[in-house]
Amino acid sequence: MCVDGARLLGDLEALGRIGRVPGGGLTRTSFSAADAEARAWYRDRCAEAGLSVRVDGIGNMFVSSPDEEPALDGVPAVWSGSHLDSVPNGGRFDGALGALAALECVRRLHEERVRLSRPVRAVGYSDEEGNYSHLFGSSALVRGFTSADLEALTGRDGDRFVDTFTAAGWDLDRATRTTVDPAAIHSTVELHIEQGPALERLGHQIGIVSAIVGLGGGTITFRGRADHAGTTSMAMRKDALTAASALIVQFPDIARSVSDQAVVTAGIITVEPGAANVVPEVARMTVDFRDLDAAHLAALDRAITTAAHGVAARRGLDVRVDFEPAIPPSHMDDGIQRIIGESAAARGLLGSSLPSGAGHDSQNMAKLAPTGMIFVPSVGGRSHCPDEETADRDIVNGANVLLDTIIALARG
Amino acid sequence: MCVDGARLLGDLEALGRIGRVPGGGLTRTSFSAADAEARAWYRDRCAEAGLSVRVDGIGNMFVSSPDEEPALDGVPAVWSGSHLDSVPNGGRFDGALGALAALECVRRLHEERVRLSRPVRAVGYSDEEGNYSHLFGSSALVRGFTSADLEALTGRDGDRFVDTFTAAGWDLDRATRTTVDPAAIHSTVELHIEQGPALERLGHQIGIVSAIVGLGGGTITFRGRADHAGTTSMAMRKDALTAASALIVQFPDIARSVSDQAVVTAGIITVEPGAANVVPEVARMTVDFRDLDAAHLAALDRAITTAAHGVAARRGLDVRVDFEPAIPPSHMDDGIQRIIGESAAARGLLGSSLPSGAGHDSQNMAKLAPTGMIFVPSVGGRSHCPDEETADRDIVNGANVLLDTIIALARG
Repeated sequence: MCVDGARLLGDLEALGRIGRVPGGGLTRTSFSAADAEARAWYRDRCAEAGLSVRVDGIGNMFVSSPDEEPALDGVPAVWSGSHLDSVPNGGRFDGALGALAALECVRRLHEERVRLSRPVRAVGYSDEEGNYSHLFGSSALVRGFTSADLEALTGRDGDRFVDTFTAAGWDLDRATRTTVDPAAIHSTVELHIEQGPALERLGHQIGIVSAIVGLGGGTITFRGRADHAGTTSMAMRKDALTAASALIVQFPDIARSVSDQAVVTAGIITVEPGAANVVPEVARMTVDFRDLDAAHLAALDRAITTAAHGVAARRGLDVRVDFEPAIPPSHMDDGIQRIIGESAAARGLLGSSLPSGAGHDSQNMAKLAPTGMIFVPSVGGRSHCPDEETADRDIVNGANVLLDTIIALARG
Repeated sequence: MCVDGARLLGDLEALGRIGRVPGGGLTRTSFSAADAEARAWYRDRCAEAGLSVRVDGIGNMFVSSPDEEPALDGVPAVWSGSHLDSVPNGGRFDGALGALAALECVRRLHEERVRLSRPVRAVGYSDEEGNYSHLFGSSALVRGFTSADLEALTGRDGDRFVDTFTAAGWDLDRATRTTVDPAAIHSTVELHIEQGPALERLGHQIGIVSAIVGLGGGTITFRGRADHAGTTSMAMRKDALTAASALIVQFPDIARSVSDQAVVTAGIITVEPGAANVVPEVARMTVDFRDLDAAHLAALDRAITTAAHGVAARRGLDVRVDFEPAIPPSHMDDGIQRIIGESAAARGLLGSSLPSGAGHDSQNMAKLAPTGMIFVPSVGGRSHCPDEETADRDIVNGANVLLDTIIALARG
């Protein structure tokens, strides 16, 4: 049994037109107009295929066959899915591939009236890219959010989550009731693009994800003094941007000092007051650091914090390090890894075990049930940009391995 | 004869309430609603005093006494003024002091019906802080702007000048007819806060400006590659923000290598795509460099450009240096410097000669006529920030020296 490759590729192309921006990228951040359009399009595809959709209070979508046998009622389900939202100016495969391949699997099982011992759900997780909160939708399933939590969230554009959410017609009260009972889930599996260069370099078609890196970080804010750029000698300045720069240039060495795999990124920086002829008083940057080892994450936190305070002290500025509690590394289920490897081998595909440097909803789902992830190659390892690309053949191969894995889990 | 100190201080306080923002700063950028309010307030003060106001096509305002003798018609005038606009979150003295003190001088001359051999004009220059173009109003007087020039201007907030200008009720056609005949101007003199710490340190009340620093700069844009912050190893990145940081940290050494007075500032930086989990593809910063010597300006331009290309080459990024032609240093008229020094001495004030590290409309006016500048102390040298402060006594002293200087020039 195979997925309908042409249909899946057509779906990916159609969804890739929603939220497209000049330059070919995709801006489909969660709860934007483009996100709403993508959700409506996804629901139309489900309706077209005769599938049922349930949407929870935070916007996670669950797709099932209405023909499911009554005997399966209450039996823990096999979940598979990914997300429909994108980063600003991102690519058309990150999230979309796993969400649409899972839909295709459920569609095929429904079309072929395959009888399984467990229910199967295709899932579209809400706001994986963290327009409002990192892995927002799956976090809502695992731990939920209180009204106060939701009130405190602001988006990339500075909007308050509750304003945007309610303006888009969502119900805040329902958004606080989203946790699921782990007993309802048998296992989960997610297909995703690798977003890195390993599979391409190896010439392998299938990645069997061993673990998802842990993630730490937050913001660092340097506060110096705003001075006139013409009248304040270099020696008298307390330039917040120069301080931030002195920290950023240390990140490669800090990462290297902790492990070969550690990465540290400043992806956003803003300065105040922000005029060409004023020495910056405030420089605020995001910091994102990752490693496969929880001890290394703690070491990165310490090294970055120490370096930030060192820069500030040497230059006479104030600094504030606001790091969130780190998200620990997450290990994928050994049994599911074995199933993925066997499926790849049975289909004559080369598979290799590798870690995920990116965060995924699967790291949340792994807290609820045995979880696995399947990677397919990213051309040039590129992701989170308009150049993100995966070959058609790799997409169909990945979806077929996903279908095999879902069937094995739901039969098992 | 003296200015009415209480009235001048009252005017400064009243104008300082227009455009005030939380935290006590002032955001009265040109052609904003606050700027329009300040202009209306200024015209009301003129009307109240029985003075006439003329406004040119770019918003420069010229105030004169309607009682001026017909015999002075066509006689080159003595101009004195400064600007009403501010930087974002700036202070209440930069520009406002010189504009209001000049108004006070014309008001006093009008009240006392002082007979002089030349007309006197109080001037309010438009957009000195360069919301749309550095020293916009005085540049319009000196060289003028074509429609194409104006079409190309964008503001700090990314708005097109022509949109904001016409929406505020100004006439684009008139804005292209603003140049003045140098023969119509006898001399100009501007009172301003020092915006630096020299006078305060010396304990002197009056600064006799010898020269205004030259100014170079523009933008530098690094273009690397957007990559996923989790899946791209540190070694494989082409991180535009890290490159920009590596350049910014060199600015103090570059300045020092050229001269003791040279300053180099990055006041604005923006990154794209600007997400916490994406390696920045583009980092664009403003660069502002200044020196009193034209050869040093050229050396700064070369050193910064070389450093930017060096950083880009070592890291495999592209870089683009877009520097405007430098504004050369401007020397103040010796005769006017002498008059200012004599006035200070006659009033028992300590004066010292010093350069201006900040740009001023006077550097444009010096191209049209002999020009001088008077500085008064800035508390702590602070400027372009809410903490900008000058003592009441220093304000009144400066305005009296300005009055003496205007009278000496108009009698001369």
